[in-house]
Amino acid sequence: MAVQLSREQFYEISPADFFYRNRDIAGFSNPARALYSAIRELVENSLDAGELVRQPPDIYVRLTCDGEKGEEGANICTLRVEDNGSGVPARHIPQAFGQVFYGSKYRLRQTRGTFGLGGTMAILYGQITTNSPVRVVSSADGKRIHDYTLMIDIRNNRPIVLKHQVFSNHDGWRGTIIETKLEGDYSRAMPKILEYFRQTAIVAPYANLTFVDPKGRLYRFERVTENMPKPPEETKPHPYGIDVETMKRIIASTQCRDMVSFLREHFHKIGRITALKFLEFAGIPPRRRPKRLSNDEIVRLVKAMKKFNGFRAPSADCLSPLGVELFKAGIVKELKPEFVSVKQRPPSVYSGYPFIVEVAVAYGGGIPRTGDILLYRFANRIPLLYDEASDVSWKVVHQLMNWRYYKVDPSTDPVAVFVHVCSTKIPYRSVGKEFIADVPEIEREILNGLREAARELSLFLSRKIAVQKEKQRLDIFEKYLPKIARFSAELAGRKPPDIKPLLKSVIKYGLEEEKEG
Amino acid sequence: MAVQLSREQFYEISPADFFYRNRDIAGFSNPARALYSAIRELVENSLDAGELVRQPPDIYVRLTCDGEKGEEGANICTLRVEDNGSGVPARHIPQAFGQVFYGSKYRLRQTRGTFGLGGTMAILYGQITTNSPVRVVSSADGKRIHDYTLMIDIRNNRPIVLKHQVFSNHDGWRGTIIETKLEGDYSRAMPKILEYFRQTAIVAPYANLTFVDPKGRLYRFERVTENMPKPPEETKPHPYGIDVETMKRIIASTQCRDMVSFLREHFHKIGRITALKFLEFAGIPPRRRPKRLSNDEIVRLVKAMKKFNGFRAPSADCLSPLGVELFKAGIVKELKPEFVSVKQRPPSVYSGYPFIVEVAVAYGGGIPRTGDILLYRFANRIPLLYDEASDVSWKVVHQLMNWRYYKVDPSTDPVAVFVHVCSTKIPYRSVGKEFIADVPEIEREILNGLREAARELSLFLSRKIAVQKEKQRLDIFEKYLPKIARFSAELAGRKPPDIKPLLKSVIKYGLEEEKEG
Repeated sequence: MAVQLSREQFYEISPADFFYRNRDIAGFSNPARALYSAIRELVENSLDAGELVRQPPDIYVRLTCDGEKGEEGANICTLRVEDNGSGVPARHIPQAFGQVFYGSKYRLRQTRGTFGLGGTMAILYGQITTNSPVRVVSSADGKRIHDYTLMIDIRNNRPIVLKHQVFSNHDGWRGTIIETKLEGDYSRAMPKILEYFRQTAIVAPYANLTFVDPKGRLYRFERVTENMPKPPEETKPHPYGIDVETMKRIIASTQCRDMVSFLREHFHKIGRITALKFLEFAGIPPRRRPKRLSNDEIVRLVKAMKKFNGFRAPSADCLSPLGVELFKAGIVKELKPEFVSVKQRPPSVYSGYPFIVEVAVAYGGGIPRTGDILLYRFANRIPLLYDEASDVSWKVVHQLMNWRYYKVDPSTDPVAVFVHVCSTKIPYRSVGKEFIADVPEIEREILNGLREAARELSLFLSRKIAVQKEKQRLDIFEKYLPKIARFSAELAGRKPPDIKPLLKSVIKYGLEEEKEG
Repeated sequence: MAVQLSREQFYEISPADFFYRNRDIAGFSNPARALYSAIRELVENSLDAGELVRQPPDIYVRLTCDGEKGEEGANICTLRVEDNGSGVPARHIPQAFGQVFYGSKYRLRQTRGTFGLGGTMAILYGQITTNSPVRVVSSADGKRIHDYTLMIDIRNNRPIVLKHQVFSNHDGWRGTIIETKLEGDYSRAMPKILEYFRQTAIVAPYANLTFVDPKGRLYRFERVTENMPKPPEETKPHPYGIDVETMKRIIASTQCRDMVSFLREHFHKIGRITALKFLEFAGIPPRRRPKRLSNDEIVRLVKAMKKFNGFRAPSADCLSPLGVELFKAGIVKELKPEFVSVKQRPPSVYSGYPFIVEVAVAYGGGIPRTGDILLYRFANRIPLLYDEASDVSWKVVHQLMNWRYYKVDPSTDPVAVFVHVCSTKIPYRSVGKEFIADVPEIEREILNGLREAARELSLFLSRKIAVQKEKQRLDIFEKYLPKIARFSAELAGRKPPDIKPLLKSVIKYGLEEEKEG
C-alpha cells in the first residue's frame, strides 16, 4: 500500500487482503463482535467435523484474556477450541487455516460453513490485532498428530508455516485443537457468546459444549441424547439449478463420452429414460460427446433443463434436518416451556437447491414475557443472533402471521418461535451469516409451518382457558358444597352427609382435563 | 466443480468464483434485486468518475427488456449506462471490468465505491444469467476511444477480451459507456430503482440523471446547481489507525533511509518535531533505516503510535461532505418541505479514519404522513435503501432520540430525517453496501447532529402553533368585529365605522409571523 498521490491508480488485491481491509463485512467490526464471530466460526467448524464422522461432538472452548492491550485498544485474548471431530488431513492444514477461499465447504452439501472463510477470518483477525501466529494441532487418521504454527501472508493470500511437528498418536485421538490470540472485548461480547452457546445447545442437543470464560467461570451444556441426525450427504446438482458457467465446468471435468451417461453421471437422479426424453426435448443427439458441444448447444442445453418438466424434484436425501424429536428435546432442555409444537415441513426447492424448514412454537414455562414474540433463528444448525429484522423469519413472524387468529396476544403472551432452515445452500445475505434472504419459496414454507404449529398452540390455549374456567367452577363447589350440606343437615336436624365422593368426581374430571393439556 | 463423492476434498476457489457462488451477499439475490444493484453500482461508478474530474455528471441510463427469458426465468434486459466522467485508462479496462478485486478504489479517499467489486459484479451477474459479454467504451484522454467486448473467466478471475477496437476521438469526448445484458425483473424492481434515482438526486443535486425504463418512460432528474463539492483527496494513513500488517507494507515500499523522513513521508501530518518526539517516546533511534527494523521493533513502533498523544487529529481535508447548502438544495428540490434544518457536524475520527456527519430534519410540504419518521440514509453520497433497521441511523432515530421532547409526534407528524455519513472508509456491514455498523463515534455524531436540527424544528413547531392560535384569534376578530361594530352603530343610531384598518393591523402581525416560519 504505497501511498502515492497520483491520479487513478489501479491495482489488484488478494482475497485475504480484501477481507483484511473489510473485516466489518465478515462480522469482525470491533473487538466485541470479533470475539463472538471467532468463537462462533471455530465452534461451527468443530460441530461440522463431528457430524462428518458421526461422532457426538465434545467441544471445549477456553478464553483467557490478560491485561495486555492489542491493536484496537482492547485486551489480548487467547482462544482455544478443541474438538473430537474428523480432524483435518495434514497436507491441507496450512491452506485450510491460512488461505482465504480454500476449504472443503464448496460443495452441494448441508454444512454450517458455506463460505470457506470463517475459520481463516478468525485467524486473520487474530494476526492483524495481535501479530501472533495460530497453532493448529490435528489428527485425521488417528495415527499421527500434526502440530502446525502458522501465519498468513495477507498480500499473497498464502499460509506461512513457521513450525511443523509430527507426533505419534498413542491414544488414537482424532480431532482438532486451534489456539489463536486475538483482541477481544469479552465484557461487551459476553451476553451474545453465552446466548450463542445456549442456542447451539438447542439445535445440537447431541453435543457437549464446555466454555471456560476469562474469569474462569465454567459454562457446560451437556448432551441429552446420543442420537445424531443422519450425516449430510453430498448431492449432484439438480438440472433446474444449472447455469452455463456450471455446465461448462462439468463438461470440462467429465470423463463421459456420450450425453446419456453424462446426464446420468453428473446430475441429480436422472435415469436412462429421462435422459433420452430430455435430449429429444433439447434437440441434442444422445450419442454426442459432451466435450464436443458448441457454445450455442451448451446454452440450449441449459435452457432446456429449465423448461423440461420430466425431471424428478430435488430430493432431500442430502439434507440433514434436526427432526421433530431432537428439535423438541433441545427446546425443552433449554426453555422448559409449558407447551411446544414442532413441525417439519416436507422438502422443497428454490433455484434448484433443496431445503427443509422446521419450525416450533412454544408457550409459557421458561419463556419470558418480553412484550413481543421471541424469535430464535437457525440455519443448518447455526443460531443466528444478529440483524433479526432483516431476516425472512422476522418478516413471517411480524408481518405475515396473524397471531390473534390463533388466540395469541404477542404483546402479553410468553410465546417463542423457532425457525430452522436447512439446505445445501442457505441464501445468506451477509458474509457474517447473520440473516437469510426472503426467497419466496422459503418464506412460504416458514409461514405454512408456523400456521400448523400455531393451530396446535391455539387448541392448547383454548383448553387452558377451559381448564381455568373449570377450576374456578370447582373452587366454588369446594367452597360452598360443604356449607350447603351442613346447612341443609342442620335444617333437617340430621348428620351432615359425606360429600367427598361427590366433590371428588367433579375434581377428577377437571384434573383429567388438565393432564391432557 | 467435478462432482465426486469421496470424503473431504479441499480446494481453492478464485474471488470471482466465490462471488459467482454467493451472489446473494453482493446484493444479487434475485432478478429484481440484481437489476437494482446493477444499476446502482454502475451509476455510482459514473458519479465517482464525474467527481474525480470535477465535471458535473450527465448520466444516461437505459434499460430495455425483450420477451426472452434468462437463466432464472425472468426477462433478459439490456442495461446501458453512459457518463461524461473521467473515463477508464485503456490498459486497465479489461481488468477493471473483468476481474474481481481489481480497481482504483483501494485507497484512503472518499469514494462511493469501496470494495472494487460492484461494477464487475454487475457484469458477472449478467454473464451468468445471459451468457453474454459486456461492452465497455471509454475515453480517458479525449484522444482515442477504446471499445472493448469482454467476458470473465470466472474460475481464474481473469478478463477475456473478445474484441478491442480503437477509434480516434474527434469531439474530444470523455466518459464511459457500459452495455451489459442481464436477467432482471423490472416490474418488481421498479419502485426501488426510481427511489434510488430520486434519492441520488437529493445528494447529487449537481448531476443530470436520465433514466429510460423498459416501457420507454423517461425519468429525468435535472441538476439545480453547477456547484460541486470539492473533490475528495487521497490522504496518508493516520498513525493511530496503523496495524502491523500495514506498517510492514509501508516499510516494504518505502524509499526513506531514516525514521524521521519515513514518518513524515508516509503518515498523516507528521512534522519533524513531532517525528523526533515520537521516536523518543517509542525508543527507536531517528537515524534508523526503516527497512532494518526488526519484527519486535515494528510491533513496538505500532503500539507506540496508538499510545502517543502528540499526533495531530486526522484532518477532514480528504473528505468531501455535501455541505449545508447543497444538501438543503437537494432536499427542497425533491420534497419541498415546509421546514428544513440541515446541520454539518465537525470532523471526527474512528479507528484512525476521519468522518463527517451531515443530518437534516424536514417537516411538512411534500413529506407524507406515514405513521413514522421517514429516514433517508446516505453514505459517501450513496442512498442506502435496504435493511434500514440494521443501520446505525435507524438506531439513533428510533431508539436514542426522544422526539416528544422536540414537540414531534412520530406517529402523526410528517417528519423526515436525512443522515449523510462521509468517510475515507464507511464501516459497511455488507458487501451490498446497505447499512452502516453502529460504530460508537459515528452513532454519537448522528445523535448530536439530530438533536441540533430537532431543536430548530421544535422552535419552528412552537411558532407554527403560536401562528395557528393567532389565526384563530384573527378569525374570531374578523367574524365578530364587524357585527359588534354594526350593532353598536345601530344602537347609537350612527353609520357603522370603517373597521378595516383595525382588522388589517391585527392581521398584518399574524402574517408576518407566518412568513418567518
